[in-house]
Amino acid sequence: MNELKYCKIKEIDNICLHGRIDTTLDVVPLLSNGHGIEVNVTGSQLWADVEADYTDFEPWAAIEINGELISRFMIDKGHHRICLFRGIDPTRTTRVKFYRELQAMSDDQTTNIVIKGLETDGEFQAPPAYKYRLEFIGDSINSGEGSYGALTDEDWTAYCMSYSRTYVNRVGKLLNAQCRVMSQGGWGVFSGWDNNRNHNIPRYYDRICGLASGGANDRFGAAKPYDFSSWIPDAILINLGTNDCSGFNQPPFTDPDTGAVYKLNKKEDGSFVKEDVKLITDAAVNFLKTVRKNNPSSHIVWLYGMLGYDLSLYLADAVNRYKAESGDKNVTYLQLPNVNEKTVGARSHPGLKSHMITAEIISDYLTEHFSNQPLS
Amino acid sequence: MNELKYCKIKEIDNICLHGRIDTTLDVVPLLSNGHGIEVNVTGSQLWADVEADYTDFEPWAAIEINGELISRFMIDKGHHRICLFRGIDPTRTTRVKFYRELQAMSDDQTTNIVIKGLETDGEFQAPPAYKYRLEFIGDSINSGEGSYGALTDEDWTAYCMSYSRTYVNRVGKLLNAQCRVMSQGGWGVFSGWDNNRNHNIPRYYDRICGLASGGANDRFGAAKPYDFSSWIPDAILINLGTNDCSGFNQPPFTDPDTGAVYKLNKKEDGSFVKEDVKLITDAAVNFLKTVRKNNPSSHIVWLYGMLGYDLSLYLADAVNRYKAESGDKNVTYLQLPNVNEKTVGARSHPGLKSHMITAEIISDYLTEHFSNQPLS
Amino acid sequence: MNELKYCKIKEIDNICLHGRIDTTLDVVPLLSNGHGIEVNVTGSQLWADVEADYTDFEPWAAIEINGELISRFMIDKGHHRICLFRGIDPTRTTRVKFYRELQAMSDDQTTNIVIKGLETDGEFQAPPAYKYRLEFIGDSINSGEGSYGALTDEDWTAYCMSYSRTYVNRVGKLLNAQCRVMSQGGWGVFSGWDNNRNHNIPRYYDRICGLASGGANDRFGAAKPYDFSSWIPDAILINLGTNDCSGFNQPPFTDPDTGAVYKLNKKEDGSFVKEDVKLITDAAVNFLKTVRKNNPSSHIVWLYGMLGYDLSLYLADAVNRYKAESGDKNVTYLQLPNVNEKTVGARSHPGLKSHMITAEIISDYLTEHFSNQPLS
Amino acid sequence: MNELKYCKIKEIDNICLHGRIDTTLDVVPLLSNGHGIEVNVTGSQLWADVEADYTDFEPWAAIEINGELISRFMIDKGHHRICLFRGIDPTRTTRVKFYRELQAMSDDQTTNIVIKGLETDGEFQAPPAYKYRLEFIGDSINSGEGSYGALTDEDWTAYCMSYSRTYVNRVGKLLNAQCRVMSQGGWGVFSGWDNNRNHNIPRYYDRICGLASGGANDRFGAAKPYDFSSWIPDAILINLGTNDCSGFNQPPFTDPDTGAVYKLNKKEDGSFVKEDVKLITDAAVNFLKTVRKNNPSSHIVWLYGMLGYDLSLYLADAVNRYKAESGDKNVTYLQLPNVNEKTVGARSHPGLKSHMITAEIISDYLTEHFSNQPLS
Repeated sequence: MNELKYCKIKEIDNICLHGRIDTTLDVVPLLSNGHGIEVNVTGSQLWADVEADYTDFEPWAAIEINGELISRFMIDKGHHRICLFRGIDPTRTTRVKFYRELQAMSDDQTTNIVIKGLETDGEFQAPPAYKYRLEFIGDSINSGEGSYGALTDEDWTAYCMSYSRTYVNRVGKLLNAQCRVMSQGGWGVFSGWDNNRNHNIPRYYDRICGLASGGANDRFGAAKPYDFSSWIPDAILINLGTNDCSGFNQPPFTDPDTGAVYKLNKKEDGSFVKEDVKLITDAAVNFLKTVRKNNPSSHIVWLYGMLGYDLSLYLADAVNRYKAESGDKNVTYLQLPNVNEKTVGARSHPGLKSHMITAEIISDYLTEHFSNQPLS
Repeated sequence: MNELKYCKIKEIDNICLHGRIDTTLDVVPLLSNGHGIEVNVTGSQLWADVEADYTDFEPWAAIEINGELISRFMIDKGHHRICLFRGIDPTRTTRVKFYRELQAMSDDQTTNIVIKGLETDGEFQAPPAYKYRLEFIGDSINSGEGSYGALTDEDWTAYCMSYSRTYVNRVGKLLNAQCRVMSQGGWGVFSGWDNNRNHNIPRYYDRICGLASGGANDRFGAAKPYDFSSWIPDAILINLGTNDCSGFNQPPFTDPDTGAVYKLNKKEDGSFVKEDVKLITDAAVNFLKTVRKNNPSSHIVWLYGMLGYDLSLYLADAVNRYKAESGDKNVTYLQLPNVNEKTVGARSHPGLKSHMITAEIISDYLTEHFSNQPLS
Repeated sequence: MNELKYCKIKEIDNICLHGRIDTTLDVVPLLSNGHGIEVNVTGSQLWADVEADYTDFEPWAAIEINGELISRFMIDKGHHRICLFRGIDPTRTTRVKFYRELQAMSDDQTTNIVIKGLETDGEFQAPPAYKYRLEFIGDSINSGEGSYGALTDEDWTAYCMSYSRTYVNRVGKLLNAQCRVMSQGGWGVFSGWDNNRNHNIPRYYDRICGLASGGANDRFGAAKPYDFSSWIPDAILINLGTNDCSGFNQPPFTDPDTGAVYKLNKKEDGSFVKEDVKLITDAAVNFLKTVRKNNPSSHIVWLYGMLGYDLSLYLADAVNRYKAESGDKNVTYLQLPNVNEKTVGARSHPGLKSHMITAEIISDYLTEHFSNQPLS
Repeated sequence: MNELKYCKIKEIDNICLHGRIDTTLDVVPLLSNGHGIEVNVTGSQLWADVEADYTDFEPWAAIEINGELISRFMIDKGHHRICLFRGIDPTRTTRVKFYRELQAMSDDQTTNIVIKGLETDGEFQAPPAYKYRLEFIGDSINSGEGSYGALTDEDWTAYCMSYSRTYVNRVGKLLNAQCRVMSQGGWGVFSGWDNNRNHNIPRYYDRICGLASGGANDRFGAAKPYDFSSWIPDAILINLGTNDCSGFNQPPFTDPDTGAVYKLNKKEDGSFVKEDVKLITDAAVNFLKTVRKNNPSSHIVWLYGMLGYDLSLYLADAVNRYKAESGDKNVTYLQLPNVNEKTVGARSHPGLKSHMITAEIISDYLTEHFSNQPLS
């Protein structure tokens, strides 16, 4: 074993950053699920110099070595020297990925992990090369809620969410794709599960990590405009609508700031009030326009179904309307199987099996799509 | 063992008939896949008195005992005394289903199986009672093409089709539903895989077995109008569009009778010509109207995706258009996973695994739907 | 389609016969499970000229095309012209296997299927070549009892047995091995499930098909000595002991011919009486000697466990004793997983899943064994 | 959230300790895989006060909440305040298990984890009650080597070992059994994989944690005699022999202390030298005697096969010899399926799938055994 050398994270060229990261910083903040670093490194060991914080929702992280999950843990407040691996033949090159499991916490603006440096007795080699770039936008499903935890778990805890067990991570492995996620449990394309209309993903899409903005995280660039030209996805997969739909079954929401009261309504026969559905589909159409404006070349797929099909026809209609209004043909709709008792995880959310099934459907679809289309 | 008694099939009251059957006949013709008889019978044995015919495509049949497939075989031309079971303790009640595997053969109007009587040393008991009634309308997928046969099989043979291994049969078992199928390989809602516009299912929907009409089968009522009030489905599942889509990639079809030339066209950029897609979606809308007219209370589900998603958004649009034009809310769209290398069967069609996955998705969906809706 | 030509079965050189067959006959009798014929043939169709008989237990047969099961059916008494396939492009070569599903029926000496000829419009090509030859000796497990039928089926019927769904058939496919089975439900290496000591397999091992001998089948050579040099197995797998063990829990058996009363006994503490177990293990040792004498070069594997482990240590001891007494090292013992509620089939016997699991274990074992040993 | 209270670990009565623990200490040392603590606790959070150490092989630990794995991580040297959970509704009772993943490290006598206290804002309730007690004795298989890690991983690292993914953990869940493991990668019942005869498990069986004895761990009682009456297993499962067998294929080992040279030898024909096998089987017989002496009432099962069957007959012979010599009937032999390419994990060791298959076989076996035997 040679001596350990400390490298400031920003001085390591041979590194692959995952997620939208403010590159003007001298640290790498992990503000959202899937944010992380990945290296190919020789040497017997690798350590990360990390600082973390939180008030209510503690951040979780995971380590993959040579593509396999090895470790998954909470990071407490304060400074930590985290071992990413040790005990390996120093002449070997080890592929290591260290990433955040927990979604951006809009409910806790103090939650963050910051990587400041790496320590190793080896050398950083050219980092892994990916064939595709994929962006996934979604809600609790993309945040992996229920992918960890017992079927009986009832609390909304940080540990029950993950990137590691989601279909996002799995699609990445199946396609050798670098994946980014932007997701928030309970949020929708128009409004949240509880009719809160502030809880829509589109309003933060053009920020580096708007979901975690405000509070301490703004010093890590969370609220800064995102430069879409910096990382052009081959495909963008939007899995939204599940929480919007929930609003029809929830009581009204009163906006604490404005006092406005919001509610999506059903008719007496149980069907959706047409104008209320249109609020959702209009939001979907508008979001597709926003996504396209910022990503002119990406294939766009609207995903839906893992937690119920109720909005299926409406979301398909939104995609059709968007296509008609925009003339854009590079977009489609892909329905996913609803969870059942064999595939459900904690908190009535998709479990690992559901995510694996979804990942196969998506990767099959994209494989065929990409085989017909030259890569962007 | 008591003596065997011969009972004319029409004199057996305790019998469950499967499929649309012309009840004015003194025989039970099996003109289409899933057509069959089912009894609960005591006695040590049961034999069927059967006549069959064909020119090009021989009929196949299957026997299920107590819900499990026991036998599957071709029936040659002529008269046969087919053993449905033997060697069973005569005091026991055995549930037996004898049914046709092969779809109605529009390409061979002589193909049929006719049941004339049953012979047993037991007594017919009250036949099995089903909780639901389901009608499935489709193409080669519903006809089970590829559900039997080697991956390398290339010919379009009778043996490679089945009812036994299809999702239709499986959904029936999962939901305790009596299922009827109307399906034809290569046909669509508007036109066949080869652009032949005569090959659309809707034109025969109101006949007892219009797909097998013409020729010898008309004496079995194939071409007669069907009385929709005789068997009211709880749900109707339409799996059409796959062959229509194929027309865009096939050469033009010249109608042999009229000389008209038909072709669905793509633009240079590979996208579908809008007017041509509209032919399909108009046909879908019209078919939904026809189905609804004849089945006022049934839940309607349009299924699609097992052999490609290309028309997904268009078919969803057709369902949406139908809903808007008719005000009918009792209809939905359910996308199914495309086959992949793990699930494919013979002739690049869905194999047994694909059918099992589909069956689970459909039965999950219907279970939830029926739990929210009182049975019609 | 060319004209059909009838070929007497014994005049077809390009044919692969499965099972021990008396080759002095001018027909091919299928006296036992797995007995059959296999051809590679061009032409659009192939028919078999067959005669069958039975009194109590009707024979069942199956057809595989290009390695996949296509058909499975009872054959009634009398003469039949059975279609093995039709409707195939006549320029193609089709691989067809037609074989008996039902075990040799020691309880019905009239049960048989006899193939007299084949009819085709094509030409017989060189038949399939197998890499290995495997002989499987056993009881109801090898006879596939319970591999067909509902979990609730209670009668010992012909239909609930098979070759098609057994691990024997599956191992054959996994290893490209030609497999022969000699098996009889209820029989043991020493005595049957009911303490009947006549029901031991070894006494018939050196006959062509001693299990079906006596009665009509003797004219098909059933009772003739078998020429072991005619087909030298690479491995012989003996799955016996399960029924012997049952005798400890069954009442005494009175031999109808001699009046002798037989019973394997347990002590009061539930353990086996040592002398009684020794009857079984002595029989196992002797059978190993017999098998070795007749098959000097074959690898021998004693299989056990699919229906309980109670004799496991005793059978291993028998194999060890045989090894010590004979100096033979080319023999081993392989325990198989007991059925459980996920893998059980009809009549509390191994179901299809259990057979598939077993097949994988055996083929893994043999693959490794053969990779270390040159083929005999 | 109430205030956090610190409880010294030895002052908590409502706690379930896993593994052989020296109860005279005022801390709970986790010296071996599966060693840990388990509580039912109310409150919003629970923290563990932990100290750890190592030189070469860092300890790993895992957290299960309500029976599901939530976290798995290395523990670095020094003092740590480890969060076992937080963010849970404080009125709920949460079941938490915190345990060591890494085997006792005979190669690093400094490796340990010590729990000194727990901190919570809740109350400790009656701990989980288990139905059975099971002891598992083994080698790298029991140490979960290869249950984590990529197929391509080559180094013998701490992270590639686990308790969480082993069949031991799974059997415990399937049977509601409290499980203890004593295992050491590379060791055998007679000698280690490299012919090192010091590396046999039996010599340490009667110590609390003899495998970790010597060095710092002796202050945690590792080398103390173990009181077998303190925890009486319903069954003891010994999975040894795999490494002994390896010695036949490895070069001689020279004992560094004595200079003695050890080697298990094969004959020219590839078979084992009889006397050398006898060294192993004698050791197995003796170990069975030792185990029985210390555990008069426990059912004993010798397991073997997950990494090859070569010693199968010899180990069965050892069990038989032990039975004959001792008159003990409460012992059996259970063979397990060899890994294959579908079930293998890292370092050519059993992967998660192999462990799950094994767990099902063992739990099926024990379920049946216990249903016939009253619990001890």
